Formats: sequence, structure tokens, C-alpha cells
Amino acid sequence: MNGVADLMQSMGRSARSAARVLAFASAVDKDRALLAAAAALRSCASKILAANQADIREAGTGLSGALLDRLQLNEVRIETMARGLEDIAQMRDPIGVRLAEWSRPNGMVIQRICVPLGVIGIVYESRPNVTADAGALCLKSGNAVILRGGSESARSSAAIHACLQEGLVVAGLPPACIQLVPTADRAAVGHMLADMTGFIDVIVPRGGKSLISRVQKEARVPVIGHLEGVCHVFIDRGAQLKMAKRIVVNAKMRRTGVCGAAETLLIDRGCAATHLAPLVKTLLEVGCEVRGDEAAAAADARVKAASEQDWYCEYLDAIIAVRVVDDIAAAIAHVARYGSQHTECIVTDDAAAAERFLKEVDSAIVLHNASTQFADGGQFGMGAEIGISTAKFHARGPVGVEQLTSYKYVVRGSGQVRD
Amino acid sequence: MNGVADLMQSMGRSARSAARVLAFASAVDKDRALLAAAAALRSCASKILAANQADIREAGTGLSGALLDRLQLNEVRIETMARGLEDIAQMRDPIGVRLAEWSRPNGMVIQRICVPLGVIGIVYESRPNVTADAGALCLKSGNAVILRGGSESARSSAAIHACLQEGLVVAGLPPACIQLVPTADRAAVGHMLADMTGFIDVIVPRGGKSLISRVQKEARVPVIGHLEGVCHVFIDRGAQLKMAKRIVVNAKMRRTGVCGAAETLLIDRGCAATHLAPLVKTLLEVGCEVRGDEAAAAADARVKAASEQDWYCEYLDAIIAVRVVDDIAAAIAHVARYGSQHTECIVTDDAAAAERFLKEVDSAIVLHNASTQFADGGQFGMGAEIGISTAKFHARGPVGVEQLTSYKYVVRGSGQVRD
Repeated sequence: MNGVADLMQSMGRSARSAARVLAFASAVDKDRALLAAAAALRSCASKILAANQADIREAGTGLSGALLDRLQLNEVRIETMARGLEDIAQMRDPIGVRLAEWSRPNGMVIQRICVPLGVIGIVYESRPNVTADAGALCLKSGNAVILRGGSESARSSAAIHACLQEGLVVAGLPPACIQLVPTADRAAVGHMLADMTGFIDVIVPRGGKSLISRVQKEARVPVIGHLEGVCHVFIDRGAQLKMAKRIVVNAKMRRTGVCGAAETLLIDRGCAATHLAPLVKTLLEVGCEVRGDEAAAAADARVKAASEQDWYCEYLDAIIAVRVVDDIAAAIAHVARYGSQHTECIVTDDAAAAERFLKEVDSAIVLHNASTQFADGGQFGMGAEIGISTAKFHARGPVGVEQLTSYKYVVRGSGQVRD
Repeated sequence: MNGVADLMQSMGRSARSAARVLAFASAVDKDRALLAAAAALRSCASKILAANQADIREAGTGLSGALLDRLQLNEVRIETMARGLEDIAQMRDPIGVRLAEWSRPNGMVIQRICVPLGVIGIVYESRPNVTADAGALCLKSGNAVILRGGSESARSSAAIHACLQEGLVVAGLPPACIQLVPTADRAAVGHMLADMTGFIDVIVPRGGKSLISRVQKEARVPVIGHLEGVCHVFIDRGAQLKMAKRIVVNAKMRRTGVCGAAETLLIDRGCAATHLAPLVKTLLEVGCEVRGDEAAAAADARVKAASEQDWYCEYLDAIIAVRVVDDIAAAIAHVARYGSQHTECIVTDDAAAAERFLKEVDSAIVLHNASTQFADGGQFGMGAEIGISTAKFHARGPVGVEQLTSYKYVVRGSGQVRD
């Protein structure tokens, strides 16, 4: 007998069965569950904070500042989670929406109707708020979800999960619509990835590179991938220096730990004489380490020499790689070679250059004269997101409620048979 | 040194490089290539037929009738291939189409633009016409393709591939847009599935169950799956017997070897007294073997007893499983348990029953009062198809030109940075 294997199979069966009910749940019921869960988060705030304190105590003094920041909850963060659920409740229910409709010469009417994916497995790390965000996005999109959070935030996630459960109960929906794996046994993740193909339709990993690469290696079900964001800002020769400075500083420094943060700055040789030194200086002044090629190093003594590895690097820190490229074609080639197809920006007043960059750069998000930090479902007006997909398969870019769906073809006839 | 591994890596590099050109090729050039390839198919018909004869000779006398039928070409089949290319040329080019556009309060304009997937790997078996169909669908959708056909049709596929190459040359497109693996070495498939993740974005298997299950097991890249079609026809108590007969006979017998052929007939107990015996008799009279439950066996002495295995079976032959179910709920439960989520039909004049079936049956295609044999991209008006997907991820149902695409987000700003 294998305890974890049996547990996971049982959770899988419950999820599949809940998914069949949830697929036909009304928008009203789903939204009622979300609003009740939001209310429960607020009324249980002290319980959640106590659980979070216990998690932090157990993690002990070895906790790095970054990990502590991801793990720690406070009143504001709980309120943000609650508002997040309310925002998702406000969104249009995608399920049952007619995506397309046409008739055939033989009189058949064909509709493409939006349906849920089924059961989604979410594997995440320390951030306990993912429990609320991911649970809510899956619920709204009609999908049952099996959540597997990091062991260091187990108590926090369980306390948040209890609030989601309360919402489901209030709305009369099956509690198994949102399940949280109750064991810290790492084997549970292995089962989700490889042994539950009959129960889990899609895996969504949220976390660092080691988690993502494990999921991609082991998963026997489709994965909505959230890979690294080696995002570029290209300063074209047609760029205004003032706008370039503002966008580069924001793209790099607003938050350095997000996947849409810029990691590499490419500067067109055609404007390097006027733009390179001021941009490098501005970055250094706001506390960013600059690793540059020869030209960048010549611009300021504080610039460190970049190695080949730097062009591939997702620093997620106050560090930027700076390179001068011959022209826009060289910039596009650099992005194709070193980039991660996440988010890239061109700064220029030259409309033709902008259009070329937007067309030829093969990334999920390409921006003209706007910060790469806009790479976010909320900023796109899509409501909450579960992450940014760098895959071209199924969902690309921000993954929100609509991206967690599939469709079916409904055909209405009057006795048609095929010749 | 591994000859096949090196060959496949080299083909992968060529495909990636061709894909970058093809992604921005004009609709005019792609269509010119398709039309020139169609012309080449016609002008090279005798060469293609000679190659096909050589394939058939080599296959020898051990060839089954079904395999010979799949393998054999003739003038009509070549003309059908040529017309198929011309039909695809007539279709709208999906690439660059604006799928959505909206503005944000800060003035940014966001567009979702259709882009190709990149490089598609097609692994197929004996039908040489897949070479033309799949090559053309990939070309139209802006994807480079690596085709790996069955060894028994190698000469036929090579002759057809030469015509596609001629089309690419006429249009000035890179010949590597459509490559055919030139070796019969089975290791080539393994490389496509597992070692070419940097070069192949999606694998599309076309063939029997053993091929599909190998692909699903080994693939390290996304797969657009074409699984079995255990398709059901449900005769509701509100069905007219005359329409039920016509639809059941067509769904089962029009072509028994296609994935949309009906394999199981479910009859509502509420109409079994009047409909069961006539339906069974009609099927027997048109040469269909009937395997039934007790009720069906009692209806006609020629009915064989169905085993549990029959309800799961995709016969792809003139055999049907027949079962009486208590009501529509039992029919939906049977489909959920034994079906393959491909295509199911309800025959009824009861609109409420029809809507319930169409809503609750979780299959790629659900039909009311129309034959399951309409499960086909051409019949749906989508032009040619590469197959029917039973997955919910990415494309579901018929996979045509539009389903072989992804999208990117293009954001146009005027200096926006994020707060």
C-alpha cells in the first residue's frame, strides 16, 4: 500500500466528479462562492496571520529576505487577496459563451461553445496567495483544481483554502472543486505530474526554474508553461532619450523580481553616441549594476564586463546587461538568439522601425514605447492571471480565466446524413 | 557519430530557419506555392503512380486489403490531392489577422495577432496523400513542417514531396519549409519526439492506435492528439423511427474505417418496444454485425452477446454494439464512462432532451439529428483538416489551418511606465 499514491488517486477521483458538476454551475453560484470566500478571508484574517506566523517560525532564521517576502502575509496582503476574488467574481463567465456560429449548405447549424478544461493541477512554491488566486481563477473558469503549495507555506495555504471551502459550501458547490494536497510529501507532485493522467487535464507550475524544469521533464499531461522572462528593451536610433530613460528605469527597476522585468538593454549604434552614456549613468544612479559589452564599458568606469552568459541571464535583481547593436536587424537577431520569447520593447519615434520590431520579434508580448513591466494580465485588463505563458501551444501570454477554457462543437440538424 | 541523429538535427535547424522566413511570407506567395504544387502533382501523375507501384510491389503479396487501399494511388486520388491544395489556397490566410483589439485607460492599445506555431512535425503511416494535405495545411498556416511518412509508402511520398518542393521554388520560398525525412530508420521518429525540442514546436501523429500511443508516451513536445473515436448514437424516446434508422445506418455504415463512424448505439428504454427491433433488423440487413445487451439479443436471434469490452471498442468495421439504457441520464453516463470524447449524436424530436445531451456530453463534437460521419473539417466548412483532436488543450475537434496557429500580443504605447 502506498499512502500518498492512494491519497492522490482519491483526490483525482473527487476532482473529476466535482468538475462534472462545476462545468454546469451557474455564473451566479460561482460568483457567490467567490464573494463568500472573500468575506471569509476578511473575517478569518487573524487566523490566517497566526498560521502564517507559525509557517515563518518553522522556516526559522535561515529564511532569506526574498523568501520571507514571498511567504509573509499581512493585513494588506489578505485584503488584496479578498479584492482579487471580488474582481474575478465581477468578470464575465466564459463558460457556455458562443465563440462562433455558422450554417452549412445542408442546413446544419454549427456552434463553437466555450467549455472548461476539466481538472487543473497547480504546483506552486512559497507564495500562499497563489492558493486564493489560482483557486478562484479555476473556479470562475469552471475547472476543478488540485492545489499543491510549498511545504514552507503549508499552514498559511491551509487557512486560505478553508476560506475558499467556506465559499463553496455557501454556494452549494462540491467542496472538491478546490482541493489542497494535505501532505508535504514531495511524492505527491510526482503523482500529479505522471500518474493522474485520467484525472488531471492540465498542469500549471508557478515558481522558480527548478520547479518549472521538473514539471516539464516529468509531466505526462499538458503543461501551461511559465518559463523565464529574459526581457529586452531596444533603444532604436529613433528614440527620444527622455522617454528611453523613463522606460528603461521602469522596465528594469520598478520590481526586479517579476518575469516582465527587463534583463537586457540593447542600444542601436546609430544613437549610441548620444544615448548610451546617459542611459548607463541613469541606471547606475538608481542603484542598478550594469554589465556591458566594450562600448558600454567605455561609457562609464562603473560598468562591469558582460560575459556571453549574461545575455542569457534572467537576473531577477537590480542588474542589467547592456549591449550596443549595429541596427534594428541586429537587435531582433539578438532577441531571437538569447531571449525567452516572453516580453520585449522597442523605444522609438520611427513608426516603420516600431512596426518591424513588433512584427518580427517572436515573443508572447511585444511593446512599442511602453514598459515591459506591463506584462501582466491585470495590466492587460484581463482581470487576474495565473501567470504568463511563453509557449505557443494553447494559451500564450497572460493566462487568465478565458485561457483556462477549451470549446466544443455543437451541431443542430434535422436528419442530415452524409453522402 | 550517429547518422540519423545528425540528419534530424540538421533538418531541425533548416526547418527553424525556414520557419522564420515563412512566418512573414505573403498570402500571395504561399498560395502561389500551393497552386504550383497542385499543377506539379497533375503533370507528374505518371511518375507518382510509378513510384506508388514500386511501393506496392515492394510491400509484396502480404499486403492486407485495407492497407493496400490506404497505400494505393490512382488518377482520381492524385486529382483529389491537387484539388485539395487548390482549396487550401482559396482559404483566408490566418496569419497576421487581428483576433482582438482593445485600449487601456492609460492609452496603450493592445492587439492579439495570429502567428504560426513555428515548426510542426507530422508522423504518419501508409497514406501517401497525407504528404500533400499536411504539407499544404502547414504551409498555409505559416509553419515549416517535417514530414515522416510510413516506410511502405516512401517512394510515393517522395514523389509527392517533390511536387510540393517545386511549388516552393516557383514561389521563391525556402525548400526547407516542407521537408520529408529521407530515411526509413525508425530512430528518426524517436528523435522527432524527444531530441528536437528546440526545433519542433508541435507533433501531430496521424495513424493507428499503436502510433498514437507511442507518440503520447515518448513526445517531449506538445502533441495535437488524434485518438480513437468511440462515437455514440443515442436514440431518445422522442426520436422518430424513420430518422433514427437513416442516421444510425449512415453513422455506422457510410464508411466504417473513419474516426467519426458510430461504434455504439444506445436506445432509450422509453422507446425500445417500438424502435429497438426495427433498428437492429435494419443494421443486420445492411450487413452490420450487431453485438447487444440482453434486450438487444432478445430483439433478433442474429444479435451476438456484447461483452464489457465491446462498450469500449472502436471497431472501425461493420460491427456495432447496441445497448438499451434507462433514460437520457443513463445514456450520458454511458458516454462519459466508455466514450472517447470524440463525436456523439442524439436523435430526438424533444428539444429539451436534445439541449441536455448537447450540453452535458463532454465531447469535441455533439450533434442533434445529424450523422456522426459529419465529424470532419471539410464537412464543417473549415476546409481541409489534419485530423480531429480529442484533447481539450489547444485545438479541439477538426484541426485545420486556423488551429495550427498561435497568437502574440502587440502593445502600442506613447511612453507609458507602470506605477
